[in-house]
Amino acid sequence: MVVSGEVLRSYVGGGWRAGEGEGAPLRDAVTGEEIARVSSAGIDMAAALDYGRRVGGPALRELTFHQRAALLKALASHLREHRDELHASSARTGATPGDSMFDVDGGIGVLFAYSGKGKRELPNDTVYVDGAVEPLGKGGTFAGQHVMTSSRGVAVQINAFNFPVWGPLEKFAPAFLAGVPSLVKPASQTAYLTAKLIELMAGSGLLPEGSVQLVCGGAGDLLDHLTEQDLVSFTGSAATAAKLRTHPAIVRNAVRFTAEADSLNCSILGPDAAPGTPEFDLYVKQLVTEMTVKAGQKCTAIRRAFVPAGLADAVAEAAAARLAKVTVGNPANPEVRMGALASLEQREEVRRSLKALLDVATVVSGDPGRVEVIDADPERGAFVSPVLLRADDPERAEPHEVEAFGPVATLMPYTSTDHVVELAARGRGSLAGSVVTADTGFAREVVLGVAPWHGRLLVLDSEDAGESTGHGSPLPPLVHGGPGRAGGGEELGGIRGVLHHLRRTAVQASPKVLSAVTGRWIAGAPRQEGVHPFRKTLAELKIGDCVVAGPRAVTREDVDRFAEFTGDRFYAHTDERAAAENPLFGGIVAHGYLVVSFAAGLFVDPDPGPVLANYGLENLRFLTPVKPGDEVTVTLTCKQITPRENADYGEVRWDADVTNSAGESVAKYDVLTLVAKE
Amino acid sequence: MVVSGEVLRSYVGGGWRAGEGEGAPLRDAVTGEEIARVSSAGIDMAAALDYGRRVGGPALRELTFHQRAALLKALASHLREHRDELHASSARTGATPGDSMFDVDGGIGVLFAYSGKGKRELPNDTVYVDGAVEPLGKGGTFAGQHVMTSSRGVAVQINAFNFPVWGPLEKFAPAFLAGVPSLVKPASQTAYLTAKLIELMAGSGLLPEGSVQLVCGGAGDLLDHLTEQDLVSFTGSAATAAKLRTHPAIVRNAVRFTAEADSLNCSILGPDAAPGTPEFDLYVKQLVTEMTVKAGQKCTAIRRAFVPAGLADAVAEAAAARLAKVTVGNPANPEVRMGALASLEQREEVRRSLKALLDVATVVSGDPGRVEVIDADPERGAFVSPVLLRADDPERAEPHEVEAFGPVATLMPYTSTDHVVELAARGRGSLAGSVVTADTGFAREVVLGVAPWHGRLLVLDSEDAGESTGHGSPLPPLVHGGPGRAGGGEELGGIRGVLHHLRRTAVQASPKVLSAVTGRWIAGAPRQEGVHPFRKTLAELKIGDCVVAGPRAVTREDVDRFAEFTGDRFYAHTDERAAAENPLFGGIVAHGYLVVSFAAGLFVDPDPGPVLANYGLENLRFLTPVKPGDEVTVTLTCKQITPRENADYGEVRWDADVTNSAGESVAKYDVLTLVAKE
Repeated sequence: MVVSGEVLRSYVGGGWRAGEGEGAPLRDAVTGEEIARVSSAGIDMAAALDYGRRVGGPALRELTFHQRAALLKALASHLREHRDELHASSARTGATPGDSMFDVDGGIGVLFAYSGKGKRELPNDTVYVDGAVEPLGKGGTFAGQHVMTSSRGVAVQINAFNFPVWGPLEKFAPAFLAGVPSLVKPASQTAYLTAKLIELMAGSGLLPEGSVQLVCGGAGDLLDHLTEQDLVSFTGSAATAAKLRTHPAIVRNAVRFTAEADSLNCSILGPDAAPGTPEFDLYVKQLVTEMTVKAGQKCTAIRRAFVPAGLADAVAEAAAARLAKVTVGNPANPEVRMGALASLEQREEVRRSLKALLDVATVVSGDPGRVEVIDADPERGAFVSPVLLRADDPERAEPHEVEAFGPVATLMPYTSTDHVVELAARGRGSLAGSVVTADTGFAREVVLGVAPWHGRLLVLDSEDAGESTGHGSPLPPLVHGGPGRAGGGEELGGIRGVLHHLRRTAVQASPKVLSAVTGRWIAGAPRQEGVHPFRKTLAELKIGDCVVAGPRAVTREDVDRFAEFTGDRFYAHTDERAAAENPLFGGIVAHGYLVVSFAAGLFVDPDPGPVLANYGLENLRFLTPVKPGDEVTVTLTCKQITPRENADYGEVRWDADVTNSAGESVAKYDVLTLVAKE
Repeated sequence: MVVSGEVLRSYVGGGWRAGEGEGAPLRDAVTGEEIARVSSAGIDMAAALDYGRRVGGPALRELTFHQRAALLKALASHLREHRDELHASSARTGATPGDSMFDVDGGIGVLFAYSGKGKRELPNDTVYVDGAVEPLGKGGTFAGQHVMTSSRGVAVQINAFNFPVWGPLEKFAPAFLAGVPSLVKPASQTAYLTAKLIELMAGSGLLPEGSVQLVCGGAGDLLDHLTEQDLVSFTGSAATAAKLRTHPAIVRNAVRFTAEADSLNCSILGPDAAPGTPEFDLYVKQLVTEMTVKAGQKCTAIRRAFVPAGLADAVAEAAAARLAKVTVGNPANPEVRMGALASLEQREEVRRSLKALLDVATVVSGDPGRVEVIDADPERGAFVSPVLLRADDPERAEPHEVEAFGPVATLMPYTSTDHVVELAARGRGSLAGSVVTADTGFAREVVLGVAPWHGRLLVLDSEDAGESTGHGSPLPPLVHGGPGRAGGGEELGGIRGVLHHLRRTAVQASPKVLSAVTGRWIAGAPRQEGVHPFRKTLAELKIGDCVVAGPRAVTREDVDRFAEFTGDRFYAHTDERAAAENPLFGGIVAHGYLVVSFAAGLFVDPDPGPVLANYGLENLRFLTPVKPGDEVTVTLTCKQITPRENADYGEVRWDADVTNSAGESVAKYDVLTLVAKE
């Protein structure tokens, strides 16, 4: 599909269309060869958005969260089968095989992660019920419940050049799970790799029509056609973020806009981590890794290395020694440790920024002017040397403001914990930071001090080093994004990333209506007695099906017997005099566990049937003490039914309400069971 | 403090300062008399922001969420004692005593509500732990936990003229609870009432220095000085919202910006609700109430009344009959049902909008040109007649786009459920909507259909009417805000409103470090055995304190005995052959309740001591079946300690892990206890 001299095709309105005109050339970062040309001229942006809203949205909203999760898993497997094709294309971006792992396999990993999260943490439904029922009146006839429904628009995803696979996938996965179609707009420099990805995705035949589209080339008038229900998520420079944020259609329609901009992330060495400690070595190793992976072209890479003033020389020396071993060149050569920047334009950018930094910093390691390369032409390929700088006056502005988006970092000394917290904040908002220390007190102080300025913080020590994924790696379960300079956005973070694509609405109604809207039984809604609900299959069961069982007396003898049987001889159950002095009970009370055990004895239907197991219990509260002589009655009501997509059973959540003879609730909880479908 | 001819004072930098110059006159909405003058000239906005950040923020962050909640309650009580002063001032805005109840007592109610929520739903700490621990490695040495910390800036709160008390308080309460100082900028028209409120707040002596400031008059260069850690929440017109949203400092620093703009909210009558049904009457009554409360000057008021085509005449007739009884005039006169608009300028606005609507609508009731008033001068006071319009062609643009911000609504017919869902969406985003129907199927379809366009939806029927708070009332536990035209913001919503003022950060570390950062024990972190933790007071107890107890054998006889004792004869516990066929167990298993009861028997220390009661249990999962012959051991670890501010005990959450002789967890759960402080 990607042919030199030909214009990359966009995937819009259900088909592949090439942009008009000659287009601009896209070049191999290593050889300078033309890979393809790029142009979006003639692509009807309004029609693409409309197609997403009209075809993609409804098709996705037909599916439940679990069904979408299952498709994500299948898609991930499909891409994994084709990973070699993606890796081959990735090498042309200047990436080493290791770099490509981050991008390609990391991206596929996001799909797997969201599939798992969707299945485990979202309901098998199209509506997400958010938070608890809020009682709004004393009589129980009026209550509130927040629900979240899919936005009716398109998620426009504008990606950066540095992660042409991971970038689109980390935005696509949460949108897809949320039931919102994606329109992917990659950065031109590496759009040929994203085009390959979308080709594989569309070719998989797994995705509902219209759920993903691709525009290669400029955005044209795309944003002019955004409406209130669309979303824009952007990754790239702060300058472009500011431009997009003020786009008239985004402003007028209050379009949800999220941005990740590269930031001046810092890594902090603890005062305890002197040479010879494992943390010293971890710090230096991580610094060099972050400088050189993806040739330093990561929004999350370390730019500012803060070390205790007394350790600055030692760190500089150790880092220089490691950096000296970093070989630069053609990533196809197995000797090469660091590849090329994504383009010659990027190299120019890096050189410009380095120049500004050199006003206040000296070079510890590397050569800002030249680089030795293996197996490649140093002029045609976008190569630079990794450069570690040192600014002995950390109060100067440049190291906190100028980002060289390549293998460049600046070492700076700090004098106290407060000082380093203040220096970290001078980045004015970062995606990621790290603290390397074995001192948990220092870790706590720094983490809580710099947290308001960071989206993610890693504390690295000898304990977690073996499993740590490192300073620079965003992970699907954790939020990605940071305040201020980092764009003020938030992506990923597990289900949080899905919820960003849903609209939250507070619904106020009677419990009956709230149950009808949410598909869950809510206290106060009608219940139906009849056949014991444990005799009903998942298909037969309805929310509100209930059994009322009891009363059963709880005698002093029962309490004694339970104490003796279980060994739970807590004084409130056994010692009349001591119990009388307990401020909450004022006398012997039955064990809470006795109450719930008796309740189960009342509500359980013993014979084999569709109910397979009680796998758990939630939100148990003992509300009123049960005293010997009380009688208990239990009402068990079917509250939520969650069929599994790939099993012959599902989860059923029951509301259990145990009352005494005065009608007061003595215990309330949710019983969790597995029930066969048929 | 408020004197005619004098300039209203601002409360900045810890003192009251009058703006310079003559200022602009603020007039009584009923009599036209000058109340005071307003000017912010000479107020140093940068210094005010700096004071908030430097003095207010640190003072607030010294306090825990519970301590801030307690202050909110005290403040609410203080304001309640002074409510008459606020009511007196409120009358001058044109409000009837009933209108003032919404504003003044409603605002005080928000403080009480947030105090209660803060105490019940937030930890007694300065850090909020968000979501579950995310395991990030198989070995258990590396995990993630999101924490939320107070933004280090100022919450700039720009309020509308229509709720001079409720507006500032609904923004202040969540900010205060979040530990973020407020800077209140009221709309000039009714700033004298907000100034009175802040005077009472500052005068209470309850609030930490710098936690609230007030700027009366124009915002001047206030926004130019915003930084990454500040927040702006705005209530007002869509045009102003768009202007603020694109302010260079807000854009450059990705300042968190939230807006509530008035919207074209709709109310939908169900096809079932023919004349004679309670829902018909409820619909008409609510429509008239929403038109006339606060003289229709509510962002949430009904502007579009959708009714089944066949019921339009009946609704028009019934509404007209009710509207005929609405008396307009001086709110001090007890005969008066509807007061004045807030100013003559507002009256001009309403008249202008009415003119545009009359191009496509006819008048059902009221007179757009004149109004009869009681006890007031109709020219000097900002009076208008309530006007109900009717647009028989609901496809025309105006009724969905033009808002007359006064006692004006337009009746429109619809033909089907899909049609009314589509019409509702033509408002392009609303704060509130309502559906009046006794048909739960219709309610579900409409609610889920229009939810993506609404922040809040009320379903009104004869069941909830008695307790319903009505279409137009935002409530502290429910979100307030809506997409698109409504501003795209979200406020209130219980603790959600607090979290908007905190920054979320993903922390990755070893369990030991995560425990140190969060102050909660996390699985995998160190534990300490020693004195039984039930013998320790709240003051002595430390997270990680634990007791390991057992093993205890679980015999077949135990299972039989438990079945017989509790009555829980579920076949998996009693019938060897049937249990063997259960796909999950494959043989007799012990009751889950038996396992947790035995565990309690093992970990409980029976003698009187600091542990007062086990009040609940959470997140119980039975992970591995316990078969007769197994032995169980339990480890109980202190996980979280929450002292109560106003009691001599607090909550302690324990991690319970029950294992079998193979070391596998058979059950995990949290045990909740009350423990004495001393």
